[in-house]
Amino acid sequence: MLIYDCEPAPNPRRVRLYLAEKGIDVPYRQIDLFKGEQLGEAFRQVNPMCTVPYLVLDDGTGIGETMAICRYFEALQPQPALFGTTPLEQARVEMWSRVMELNGLFAVGEVFRNTAPGFKDRGWPGPVNLAQIPALAERGRVRVAQFYRDLEARLEQTPFLAGADFSVADITGFTAIEFAGWVQLGIPAANVNTQRWFDAIAARAPVRAHPLRL
Amino acid sequence: MLIYDCEPAPNPRRVRLYLAEKGIDVPYRQIDLFKGEQLGEAFRQVNPMCTVPYLVLDDGTGIGETMAICRYFEALQPQPALFGTTPLEQARVEMWSRVMELNGLFAVGEVFRNTAPGFKDRGWPGPVNLAQIPALAERGRVRVAQFYRDLEARLEQTPFLAGADFSVADITGFTAIEFAGWVQLGIPAANVNTQRWFDAIAARAPVRAHPLRL
Repeated sequence: MLIYDCEPAPNPRRVRLYLAEKGIDVPYRQIDLFKGEQLGEAFRQVNPMCTVPYLVLDDGTGIGETMAICRYFEALQPQPALFGTTPLEQARVEMWSRVMELNGLFAVGEVFRNTAPGFKDRGWPGPVNLAQIPALAERGRVRVAQFYRDLEARLEQTPFLAGADFSVADITGFTAIEFAGWVQLGIPAANVNTQRWFDAIAARAPVRAHPLRL
Repeated sequence: MLIYDCEPAPNPRRVRLYLAEKGIDVPYRQIDLFKGEQLGEAFRQVNPMCTVPYLVLDDGTGIGETMAICRYFEALQPQPALFGTTPLEQARVEMWSRVMELNGLFAVGEVFRNTAPGFKDRGWPGPVNLAQIPALAERGRVRVAQFYRDLEARLEQTPFLAGADFSVADITGFTAIEFAGWVQLGIPAANVNTQRWFDAIAARAPVRAHPLRL
């Protein structure tokens, strides 16, 4: 078993933090997204969609998409449960995971991918080159501001996003905020509950064992 | 229990087709996205994120996000399994669901939301108005073309997206293609396997019982 990874990138990092929380060790192989290695012939043979993280099982079966990889391991080893246990918990984890992705991670991605010089033609992941759209970066900034408002409102009510327990939704939210730091969109000073929650996650042993290295 | 719905819209439709496949009846209440009803004070009191589908349980608990609603019902009533059963099946369903969403449904959404006159300030769902970006509509068209290529390559290999069995990934892919029809981006003639798969889904009794009404 092997995971194709790009250590600093937010989606591979979600898988790495998830596996650390589960106590599961999988070997990684680095693919340098910053140099376009995912678009090279060698990696296209592995994953024609040119994305990481990408899990390859011992029989050669490939699994792409961050949450698909996490769910594979969740089904293999259900404890500690990071996708909820009861139907309502499972729904809440999925709901807040989606909100963190769509309104957090993707909104930051709109800013980063449409402004970073090294991502000039990488407006969206995958094999097709897509030009940067400055207006989309601006839209991303507006969306990130709204994301922080919604996040603070939620974390005024609950210790973790899905309720009392830490889950993958928190991993995604945490990773989105780290990523927001890349484009100088850190947690606003008014977001005291967001900061409390972020600091609590940063202090977890599995997260401390995997510091973000840019 | 009640689902806030907007019958023709693709995300509410995914929930409706999912529940039809499961044989679960839930009452619906229509929210007219085409008239901006999701932004009105009455619906904001229900869901401050201003999105449908939105499930409200009998105790008042609200669950947003399409896949969170489906997963709630999947946990309550596992059969017939539409999210896979074994770890590998579960991973494949999640993987192909994501590909259908990110590269299909969202790409079509980029075209539709950034061109439709009635969605002038609705570049992304939610409470914040976001201006249309013509370049994003164009990017969406490029992405939809790539989506069709990837979809055909996958469906050359398997009867359904995740493998031998119908799953929520197929519901999302089917709905994305219906939605693509709204912007005249129907299945290309060369996509013979895509057409075979689409027709097979359209012929399923639960799908026939819920025709798309625009």
